[in-house]
Amino acid sequence: MKSEILRLLKENDTYLSGQQICDHFQVSRTAVWKVIEQLKKEGYQIEAVRNKGYRLVDSPDVMSKAEIESLMKTRWAGKKVVYYDETDSTNNRAKDAGEKGEEHGTLFVADRQVAGKGRRGRSWESPAGTSIYMTILLHPDMLPSKAPRLTLLMALAVAEGIQKVTGLESQIKWPNDIVIHGRKVCGILTEMSAEIDYINYVVIGVGINVNQETFPQEIQERAVSLKAELGTNIKRSELIAATMESFEKYYEIFRKTEDLSGVRELYNSLLVNIDKEVKVLEPGHEYEAYALGINETGELIVRLQDGQEQEVYAGEVSVRGVYGYV
Amino acid sequence: MKSEILRLLKENDTYLSGQQICDHFQVSRTAVWKVIEQLKKEGYQIEAVRNKGYRLVDSPDVMSKAEIESLMKTRWAGKKVVYYDETDSTNNRAKDAGEKGEEHGTLFVADRQVAGKGRRGRSWESPAGTSIYMTILLHPDMLPSKAPRLTLLMALAVAEGIQKVTGLESQIKWPNDIVIHGRKVCGILTEMSAEIDYINYVVIGVGINVNQETFPQEIQERAVSLKAELGTNIKRSELIAATMESFEKYYEIFRKTEDLSGVRELYNSLLVNIDKEVKVLEPGHEYEAYALGINETGELIVRLQDGQEQEVYAGEVSVRGVYGYV
Repeated sequence: MKSEILRLLKENDTYLSGQQICDHFQVSRTAVWKVIEQLKKEGYQIEAVRNKGYRLVDSPDVMSKAEIESLMKTRWAGKKVVYYDETDSTNNRAKDAGEKGEEHGTLFVADRQVAGKGRRGRSWESPAGTSIYMTILLHPDMLPSKAPRLTLLMALAVAEGIQKVTGLESQIKWPNDIVIHGRKVCGILTEMSAEIDYINYVVIGVGINVNQETFPQEIQERAVSLKAELGTNIKRSELIAATMESFEKYYEIFRKTEDLSGVRELYNSLLVNIDKEVKVLEPGHEYEAYALGINETGELIVRLQDGQEQEVYAGEVSVRGVYGYV
Repeated sequence: MKSEILRLLKENDTYLSGQQICDHFQVSRTAVWKVIEQLKKEGYQIEAVRNKGYRLVDSPDVMSKAEIESLMKTRWAGKKVVYYDETDSTNNRAKDAGEKGEEHGTLFVADRQVAGKGRRGRSWESPAGTSIYMTILLHPDMLPSKAPRLTLLMALAVAEGIQKVTGLESQIKWPNDIVIHGRKVCGILTEMSAEIDYINYVVIGVGINVNQETFPQEIQERAVSLKAELGTNIKRSELIAATMESFEKYYEIFRKTEDLSGVRELYNSLLVNIDKEVKVLEPGHEYEAYALGINETGELIVRLQDGQEQEVYAGEVSVRGVYGYV
C-alpha cells in the first residue's frame, strides 16, 4: 500500500486529509498514519496540518520498491519491481528469476552491486547511493538471433529517459553505450538464455552514472555523471520510471515487425558515430571506415575507403571513434 | 582412485597382483583391497586368485563417476564427470555449473531425472536404470549465432557412438534427433547463455533410449530403444564414453573453421531426410519441399516445387518427413 499512498500524495499538489486517504484505500487511519511515519523516516518531507491533512513537500533521491512503483506509468515494463539495497548484480538476480519463470517485464533494481558486471565478464564499479543499476527481465517470443536488437531499444529508452528527467541531450555509441560530450554515462549489458530456436529469457542490464561527483582515476577521463553535467542532484527513481516508460513504448513498436524499422530514424539521429570516421576492430583486423547509421536489423552500415558499403555486426567488431573517447 | 583401478583392470585381460596395483598407484594393499570390495558391491565381477591376483570378469551396466571415467578416452570432453543417481535435469546441473565457471568439457550424467526437459520447456520422460541422460558444458570462444552448429556435431557423435558400441546404424533427423528405422532413439537439447557477441556457456543435453523394454503408450510408435533393436542389454557407460570420444573429434574439426565444412559430407550421409520429400512447417505457413542436405553453416537446403532452392534454419521451421514418424 505504501507505493499507492505515495503515488496519491505525488499526484496531489494540495493537502490530502487522512480521511480521504482512508476512504480511497479502505483502510484505518492508524494504517495511514503508520505509512506516513515510515515515509518520513525514509526521507520524504511530508507536511501534516490539522484540519487540512498531508502534503508531500519534497521527495529526496529515495530508492525503494515503493518509490519506484509509485512513479511507474507503464503497463508491464517495470510494473513489478524487485528492489535490493545491495545485491551481487541485478543481471544475476534477473537471470535467476528468469530460470524460475518470473514474469515478463519484472525490473530488478539495486542501490549497490557487490559484483557488478560489464561485458565479457568484466567488472562494473557499483558504489552505493549515486547510480542506477537495474535489469529488466523479458520473455520475448522470437528467434534468439533477434535478441541483440533489444539492446538498441534500451539505448534509445535511456537516452530519452535522461532527456525527459534532466533535459540533457545524450547520444548513443553503437550498440550499447550512452555518452554525453563523448564521455560514457551509461552502459547496457544484454544477456540471454536460449535454445536453438527459442528464447528462454532475455535480461537487459542498465548502469547509469547519476549523482557521482568523482570517478576512479583510471576512468575519470572517459566517464561522466548526469549530476556533473547538470550541476544538481537527480532523483534516480524518476529516471528509472521515465526510462521504463520509453522502453515499453519502443519495445511495442519493435514487436510489430521484430525489426528496427520503426525506430531506426530516431536511433540514427541520436547516434554519436553517424557521419564520422570510425575504427572497425575485427578480431585480428582493424580498418577505418565512415559510419552511415544502422539498418533495420541493427547492424551498423559503414562505407569503406574504396566506396563499398558494409554491415558491421554488433559484437563481431568494436567501433571506436576517431575523436575523444567514443 | 577407483576410476584408475577400474581402468587398469579393464585394460588387462590377465590377472593383476595386488602388489602390482599398489606399486602402480603408490598405495597400501589395504587401500587396494577396499576399492576391490567396493567395486564388487557395485556389481563388478572380480575374480581374486591367490598368488595370481585380481581379474575383471565382467562389468555390468554400472553407471557411476568411476565407471564412466575409467572408460573415457578423451582429452577434455567428459574427462571430468559429475554423476547423479537422481537430479532434476542434467541441463540444469550443467547450466548452474556454467554460471559458476565450471570447466569446459565437464559432463553431467544422471541415472534418473525428475524434471527432464525436452525442447521449449516440454518434459522428457526420464525413468531410472535404462537411459542415458547427460549434458556436456562448453565455453566456446565464438559468436552466439554459431552455437546451433554444436547440436549437429553432437548428433554426429551420438550416431557414431551407437555404431561403435552396438553396431546399429542410426540416422539423424535434422537438426537434433537420432532415429533408427524412423523411430526416435535420442533427442538433443542445446541451451546457451550469451551476451550479444559472447557466449557465456553452452550446454548440450543428450537423452538416449538404451535398455528400455517398453515405452508409455502415447510414444511407443515413435520411440525405440537400442536394446529393442539389438536384442541385448547395452552398457550405458560405454556408450557415453564412445559418444564423448566422437564428440571431441568432431568438435576439434569444427573449431578449425567454425563451420561444418569438415563434417558436412558425413552428416549428410547419415541424414534421414536427405533426398526425401519433407514438410517445412514455418509459423503460420506450411509447404512441401525436397531436402538436399545441410550446408556449411548447418541449414537444411530444400528444393521448392518451382525448382528454387532455399535454406531452412533450424528452429525457424520444423521438418517432418512424409514417411513414418520422422
